[in-house]
Amino acid sequence: MWLKAENLQKVGAFKARGAHNAVMALSEAAAAAGVVTHSSGNHAAAVALAAANRGISAQIVMPANAPEVKLAAVAGYGGDIVLCQPTPGAREEAVATIQARTGATLVHPYDDAQVIAGQGTTGLEVIEQLTDRPPDAVVVPVGGGGLISGMAVAVKAALPDCEVIGAEPAGADDAYRSFRAGELIPQTAPNTIADGLLTSLGELNFAIIRRLVDDICVVDDVGILAAMELIWTRTKLVVEPSGAVAVAVVLADRERFAGRRVVAVLTGGNVDVRSLRWDVDQGPDVAG
Amino acid sequence: MWLKAENLQKVGAFKARGAHNAVMALSEAAAAAGVVTHSSGNHAAAVALAAANRGISAQIVMPANAPEVKLAAVAGYGGDIVLCQPTPGAREEAVATIQARTGATLVHPYDDAQVIAGQGTTGLEVIEQLTDRPPDAVVVPVGGGGLISGMAVAVKAALPDCEVIGAEPAGADDAYRSFRAGELIPQTAPNTIADGLLTSLGELNFAIIRRLVDDICVVDDVGILAAMELIWTRTKLVVEPSGAVAVAVVLADRERFAGRRVVAVLTGGNVDVRSLRWDVDQGPDVAG
Repeated sequence: MWLKAENLQKVGAFKARGAHNAVMALSEAAAAAGVVTHSSGNHAAAVALAAANRGISAQIVMPANAPEVKLAAVAGYGGDIVLCQPTPGAREEAVATIQARTGATLVHPYDDAQVIAGQGTTGLEVIEQLTDRPPDAVVVPVGGGGLISGMAVAVKAALPDCEVIGAEPAGADDAYRSFRAGELIPQTAPNTIADGLLTSLGELNFAIIRRLVDDICVVDDVGILAAMELIWTRTKLVVEPSGAVAVAVVLADRERFAGRRVVAVLTGGNVDVRSLRWDVDQGPDVAG
Repeated sequence: MWLKAENLQKVGAFKARGAHNAVMALSEAAAAAGVVTHSSGNHAAAVALAAANRGISAQIVMPANAPEVKLAAVAGYGGDIVLCQPTPGAREEAVATIQARTGATLVHPYDDAQVIAGQGTTGLEVIEQLTDRPPDAVVVPVGGGGLISGMAVAVKAALPDCEVIGAEPAGADDAYRSFRAGELIPQTAPNTIADGLLTSLGELNFAIIRRLVDDICVVDDVGILAAMELIWTRTKLVVEPSGAVAVAVVLADRERFAGRRVVAVLTGGNVDVRSLRWDVDQGPDVAG
């Protein structure tokens, strides 16, 4: 198994790719009005950094109960934090208010063509890096679907026979269910330690997934933590629970992947190492 | 600051270097009788792997209260584990018994010229890897002194003006005290979270240190844990507490190192991630 270590990416997660592509693609006029997004996770830091790199303002709407470490990361990258109540309605309202006042462009965490294209560069790099023998399968964690949809476009264009497989926590399996049902089934009441993958699939993401992704597999939190421990212990790389889900899926079905060149994406490494709980009975209390 | 990531070395620590050099340097006749060592830490796994790579037997004397993860590591590398009571007397007796019976060669963890030479390759590599601008200072954790004595020989031969600085926990500061006193002062009752650095300096090691090392600095456990957290969080590398001591020393005296090209050695990354305690009040309970 080959690991694509996006935990070593800027801001500690693949999210830097999509955010930079979206921010750098803005016209001069649009850029002058700045960008806005809502996120309590890695996308927030990614947009803050991308905006700083272009020299424009970034308003980041975050729930008032976001972990301090996440707030500090966004502030550290120069983002302007706007706190809101921790509900979808409150954060959408906050974004709308900012857009009405400033004309800022929303950089959506995943349901956005520029973001998807940016995340897809992960797939281009995997292909460039495995020149001696191309991958037979690429396994990608699925939350909103930004990474897997972008990677599927890139990988299938270059290697039509390479399988692209989604990896999802059993406790947030809307992509698995949507893929099988052939229609978008929103995630309700997710419950998993993989706190970066709680969200529902985006519409544009699902349309690409239906067309290009070969399969979506689920794995439970015990498997996710075991994979995370294996990665920490054997590769000495810090990955967050969400970032270990692809490895967990491969380990859960070794027969399927035996003898094949498999790439698993380690999507991110941002975890509050002091408060990390290895006990799955604790539920999704990890500050990921 | 540049980090020499020996946590990514075979067996997860620089110890693989010295053990391999010692084992590979044995005559055919000596090798046939196998090797023996006593260690509850990374050296045990290193000797087991080196012996396996040469195809000879390795008897590893370990205290009966060694962490299960350490025993499993040695067994996994093919070492034959001989359990003894957790006292220096008991382990030396166990080694003597094995030597008398088998004629096996002792591979000492640090007080051995071949081991020192092997650890010194860390210094050669640092110099090879920083060709654009050589280091001004190399900061190296000190336990028995195997690594720093080997690196001092290598670094001072190539770069006489490069400082070689030892980094030691305040709770196991025998090298610091010995260096200042000009005579070997054994470590008694060490108390630090850096459990790989509890031992006293070796005689050969101290002789080299007196001649070639420029300074030895100490840092307390609060500083060690802060450095470890910084490394985990920012570089996404898993280091054990002992492996973070050089970084901690640099961070504790930024003025001294400002503007200079400083290399800190991350000596190892073998930590039981599930039982890691970030609270220094817990004392040296980390399974490192």
